[in-house]
Amino acid sequence: MIMADDTFQKLTEVFRKFPGIGPRQANRFVFFLAGLSKDNIDQLKNLLTDLTNTTFRCPDCRRLFSSQAGGHLCRLCADPARDQSHLIIVEKESDLDNLEKTGIFKGRYFVLGKLLPLFATQPEQELSLEILKKKIKKDKVKEITIALSANLDGDSTANFIKNYLIKHFTNQIKINFLGRGLSSGTELEYSDPETLKNAWENRK
Amino acid sequence: MIMADDTFQKLTEVFRKFPGIGPRQANRFVFFLAGLSKDNIDQLKNLLTDLTNTTFRCPDCRRLFSSQAGGHLCRLCADPARDQSHLIIVEKESDLDNLEKTGIFKGRYFVLGKLLPLFATQPEQELSLEILKKKIKKDKVKEITIALSANLDGDSTANFIKNYLIKHFTNQIKINFLGRGLSSGTELEYSDPETLKNAWENRK
Amino acid sequence: MIMADDTFQKLTEVFRKFPGIGPRQANRFVFFLAGLSKDNIDQLKNLLTDLTNTTFRCPDCRRLFSSQAGGHLCRLCADPARDQSHLIIVEKESDLDNLEKTGIFKGRYFVLGKLLPLFATQPEQELSLEILKKKIKKDKVKEITIALSANLDGDSTANFIKNYLIKHFTNQIKINFLGRGLSSGTELEYSDPETLKNAWENRK
Amino acid sequence: MIMADDTFQKLTEVFRKFPGIGPRQANRFVFFLAGLSKDNIDQLKNLLTDLTNTTFRCPDCRRLFSSQAGGHLCRLCADPARDQSHLIIVEKESDLDNLEKTGIFKGRYFVLGKLLPLFATQPEQELSLEILKKKIKKDKVKEITIALSANLDGDSTANFIKNYLIKHFTNQIKINFLGRGLSSGTELEYSDPETLKNAWENRK
Repeated sequence: MIMADDTFQKLTEVFRKFPGIGPRQANRFVFFLAGLSKDNIDQLKNLLTDLTNTTFRCPDCRRLFSSQAGGHLCRLCADPARDQSHLIIVEKESDLDNLEKTGIFKGRYFVLGKLLPLFATQPEQELSLEILKKKIKKDKVKEITIALSANLDGDSTANFIKNYLIKHFTNQIKINFLGRGLSSGTELEYSDPETLKNAWENRK
Repeated sequence: MIMADDTFQKLTEVFRKFPGIGPRQANRFVFFLAGLSKDNIDQLKNLLTDLTNTTFRCPDCRRLFSSQAGGHLCRLCADPARDQSHLIIVEKESDLDNLEKTGIFKGRYFVLGKLLPLFATQPEQELSLEILKKKIKKDKVKEITIALSANLDGDSTANFIKNYLIKHFTNQIKINFLGRGLSSGTELEYSDPETLKNAWENRK
Repeated sequence: MIMADDTFQKLTEVFRKFPGIGPRQANRFVFFLAGLSKDNIDQLKNLLTDLTNTTFRCPDCRRLFSSQAGGHLCRLCADPARDQSHLIIVEKESDLDNLEKTGIFKGRYFVLGKLLPLFATQPEQELSLEILKKKIKKDKVKEITIALSANLDGDSTANFIKNYLIKHFTNQIKINFLGRGLSSGTELEYSDPETLKNAWENRK
Repeated sequence: MIMADDTFQKLTEVFRKFPGIGPRQANRFVFFLAGLSKDNIDQLKNLLTDLTNTTFRCPDCRRLFSSQAGGHLCRLCADPARDQSHLIIVEKESDLDNLEKTGIFKGRYFVLGKLLPLFATQPEQELSLEILKKKIKKDKVKEITIALSANLDGDSTANFIKNYLIKHFTNQIKINFLGRGLSSGTELEYSDPETLKNAWENRK
C-alpha cells in the first residue's frame, strides 16, 4: 500500500470513525485537506478549539449545545415560553432538531444520548434516568412523550423507560409514544404487515 | 433497428404496457417466449383463456376474482363469518390482499378499482359510489374505514368519499381512515415533517 | 393466503418464470390482465399464436427470428452485403441486437443460445459447435471474434470455444476477443484492479 | 432553525465543503465531534497541524505526500528501482494510489492535480505542463501513458496534453492512453454503444 506515511494514514483512520464514512471517503478527506492552504487548516483547527470551549451539555435536558457563555441551560430549557409540563424524550440531538423543525411541539426535551444497548448491565445509569426523574419532579411534568425510532432498539428502550416511569411515578403522569401507522407517501400495496396492523389499530 | 419483424415488435409493445415494464425487459420477455416450446406457449394461452372465462367482478365488493362457477359473490363476500357491519374501502385487489395477509380485519371490503383522477368530471361514477351506497344500506354498515395510500391522490380520493358518505348517511356511520405516524423501521432523524406531525398528533 | 383461486395462481406462477420477475410483480401482471377486456386478451393470445407459427431458428446463425415465410435464413444471414469471412460469436439475441445498434460490424453472427454451464458434460453439443464448425467451413471464415460478457461464465465459455477452434482449424483462422479496458464513463479512482490491468496492458 | 449557535453552524458549513458531504451528514459530524472528549479533539487538531507541517508537493511528480523530512522527492520519485523512462500522467493522488495497488506499473508518475476546466484560459499553466516538460527531458522519458478518467473532461484533457507533447517532442516519445473496452463484469446486453465500439476496435 502506497500511503505508508504516518500523518496521512493516521488522519484517514480518524475520519473512518466519523459517522457513515468508509475507508475510501476517509482517504479522500485527507487528500482534500492536504490540498488546502495553511490558513484554511488553521480556521478548521480554531473551530475545533471553539467547539471544545463552547460545547456544553445542558444540565437540564442533557443535550449538547454550543454557547459563548456556557455552563448554563440550553436555549430551549431557558425559554420560559416553552411548556415545562410536557416533556419529549428523544435519543439524540439530531432527532430533537428534526422535531423542532416541524414547529408543532412547544414543550421541553430530554436527550438520552443513546438507545439502550442489548445487554445493558446498568440501564438506568446509561440513560441518566436519575437526572430525568429529578427534572420531572422539578418541572412538575404532566405528560411525557417517548419519541424514539420505530425499530427494535427504539422500542425496547422506550418500554424500559415507560416501566421506569410507572415504577417511580405510578399514575401521576400521562405517558405516551409517537403514533404508529402509514408514514407520508406509503403505498398500501407495499406496506409491511406491522405497519398495516398499527395503521389499522390507530385508525381514526 | 434489427427487430423489424412484426410479431416480435408487436409483442414487445404489448409487454411494455404491463405494469413496471420498460422496453428492454419487454424485449427480453419476447425472446424468452420465442425460446419456449409450443406446448409451453399453449399452456400460457390456455391460462389466458381461463382468465377470460373465470374472472368475474364481485357484484358486491367490486373486486376481480377467479372462479369456476362465477357470476356470484367472491369468497370474502360469500363468507358469513365476516362482519358485514364493518367495511374497508381499498383502491385495488393487491391492497386488499396485503391487508388480508395481516389477518387483523374480519369485515368486508369495497374495491374502488382506482383513485380519483386529478380532474375527474364524474367522480361518483368513476368510483362506483352508487354501488357502494347500496351495499352500505343492504349490509347495514356501521363503520367504514377508508384505506387508501398515504399520498396526494389517495388523500384527495379519501376526502371525496368521506364527504360523499357524510352527505348520504349523515351521522349514521362511523367513518375513519388508516392511522398515520411512524411506519415500522422509521428513524426519527430521517422522518419527514408531515410524518412527524402525524406521529405527534396520534401519540398514544 | 387469499388468492387460492386456480387461474390467478397458476398464471402468477407462469409469470414468475419470466426473466427478472418476482412474485409481487407476477401478481400485478395477473391483476392487470384480469382487468383487460376479452378483446385485449384475445389480441395477446393471437400474438402468442403468431409467435409460435412465425418464430424460426436460423439454420445458419442459430438465432431466433420472426418471419411470415420461415424455414429459411434470417435477414442477416440472407444479406449478401454482409462479409461472411468475419464471424462474431455471441451468447444471445439481445447481445446481437445491441451490437447491431452500433452499426460497426458488417460481418455475420453465430448465436450460442447460452453460456457453458459450470459442469457441462457435453459442452460441444450444448453450444452447437458442430454447426458452428460447418458454418465456418462453408463461409470460408477468416476472422472470428468471440464477443461474450466480461465475467466468469463468459470468459470460461470463450476459452472453451477458442480451444475448440484451434483444435479444428489450427492457425487458419484469426481468433480474437472483444477488447478489455475502461468502459465509457469509468473514473480511474473507482476502477477495479482487473479493469486497470486490462486497460494498462491494452494501452495504445 | 434550532442550531443558531455559531460554532456548530460554522463547523457544519466547513464539513459541507468536504468531498461528497451534504448538509445532514455535515451536521452529524458536528454532533459526533461535540460528543468527543477534549483529548480526542486535541488529537485531531495535532494531526491537522502535522498535516500542514509534513505535507509537501513532490517537486518532480507534483503529488502531495506526507514526510517528516520534507522538501525532497516523494517515495516513488526517490526510488531508483522505478523505471524513469516510462511516465504515467494521472489526474490526482487517489488515481495514482489505485494504479499502484495493482502492482503492474513500475515507472514514474506525474500528477496534474485536476482536469482541464471547460473554458481554461491558461491551460498549460493550470496543468503545470512546463514542469512536466522539464521532467520528461531530465528523465529521458521514452513512453508516456496518459491515464485519465474515461469521460468528457478526462478525454479533452488527455487530448490537450497529447497535442502539447507532440508539439514539444514531435516523435521522440511514444504516447499512449489506457485501453478502452469492456470493463470487468460488463454484460454485453447492457453495454453502451461507445463501449462496444471501443471493445470492437480493440479486439485482440
